[in-house]
Amino acid sequence: MKKAIVLLSGGLDSATSAAIAVSQGYDTIALSFRYGQKHAKELEIAQNLAPKLGIKEHFVIDVNLSLWGGSSLTDNNLAIPQEGVNPQIIPSTYVPGRNTVFIAIALSLAEAASAEAIYLGINAVDYSGYPDCRPEYLQAFQNLANLSSKVGIEGKTPQLIAPLINLSKVDIIKKALSLNVPIDETWSCYQGGEIPCGVCDSCRIRNEALKQLGISN
Amino acid sequence: MKKAIVLLSGGLDSATSAAIAVSQGYDTIALSFRYGQKHAKELEIAQNLAPKLGIKEHFVIDVNLSLWGGSSLTDNNLAIPQEGVNPQIIPSTYVPGRNTVFIAIALSLAEAASAEAIYLGINAVDYSGYPDCRPEYLQAFQNLANLSSKVGIEGKTPQLIAPLINLSKVDIIKKALSLNVPIDETWSCYQGGEIPCGVCDSCRIRNEALKQLGISN
Repeated sequence: MKKAIVLLSGGLDSATSAAIAVSQGYDTIALSFRYGQKHAKELEIAQNLAPKLGIKEHFVIDVNLSLWGGSSLTDNNLAIPQEGVNPQIIPSTYVPGRNTVFIAIALSLAEAASAEAIYLGINAVDYSGYPDCRPEYLQAFQNLANLSSKVGIEGKTPQLIAPLINLSKVDIIKKALSLNVPIDETWSCYQGGEIPCGVCDSCRIRNEALKQLGISN
Repeated sequence: MKKAIVLLSGGLDSATSAAIAVSQGYDTIALSFRYGQKHAKELEIAQNLAPKLGIKEHFVIDVNLSLWGGSSLTDNNLAIPQEGVNPQIIPSTYVPGRNTVFIAIALSLAEAASAEAIYLGINAVDYSGYPDCRPEYLQAFQNLANLSSKVGIEGKTPQLIAPLINLSKVDIIKKALSLNVPIDETWSCYQGGEIPCGVCDSCRIRNEALKQLGISN
């Protein structure tokens, strides 16, 4: 059976991307990261979600990017912004190198597991302006992957697939609903409390889209 | 003072690459990986070497690629080859995605620490045929780095520098000697015993070069 790796953060986007991989007939292996984020909530959520999405196996790997901080998601001295999305700036929630590290580790797993695809929940429309969520970034990573690996030399590089990259958040939610993703069991909030904060960028973007669709959050 | 990250495995090549960075006036931060390699010897060696090479700070980060194995360096069920280098095949010591993961993590640190360069000990001449030691691989990674980061958007992407990439092992040793690298305190062996095994590819390549230069190993 053809295999895919899905990066699963526990958020709405990665859950939807994972559901798409499963719906396309892949035997899926989820990969989540303990990267030094301030809260463990998203990992609990990811572990709860994986079997419900039809995922067969789930790795959680440590790679502690908080050793050098540089982001309000990993550095306790920096507060997570609450004032709303400003499309002109890259916010402090940007984690230096995070997607590059995550995709690199996914390539390692994909090669070891003979997976032919890596599904990513990244999105270039309703997002926070992160440079590592753009199509040209992903294309450059595919070029690198083709050169980096033993399987690449054999012409069997895993393909990086970002099925949500050009969708609005509204369209992502519609896609999630069509695939029976348990949206209310996903966690997009940058904070780690009992309920989502409602004021971080991630909550604001999600809640605005849910509101447009007439869904309560 | 301008800063550089140096990837330090404890081997001859990475020690020489680090010494070059220091000799070029960089304030250097070393980065080593506990990646699930079978022995901790190389990390002890790296920690001993760093201050002797003039390195100011040293991070050791966990990223356990042995979770999925796929290499005789990380998988206890696979023996490290001892029969000598065969240039026609990529040996089992190849670790899927390893250099891509290491360089990705180095880019994260470089961005957080505002370093302008990342020094790598990779070498495309006297090596084991790994695909992720080739100049075209490194060029593709630089292209990715330029697109991936906040500093990239600002035109200040750290530069990937592989000063040994086109040198023979003999020339690397000459360079190391000229920079007073304590060669006898480096560890290139894939095994982790008290003394180098002498028969793994890494020992064979190193010892052949030392012999050509009339240096005992």
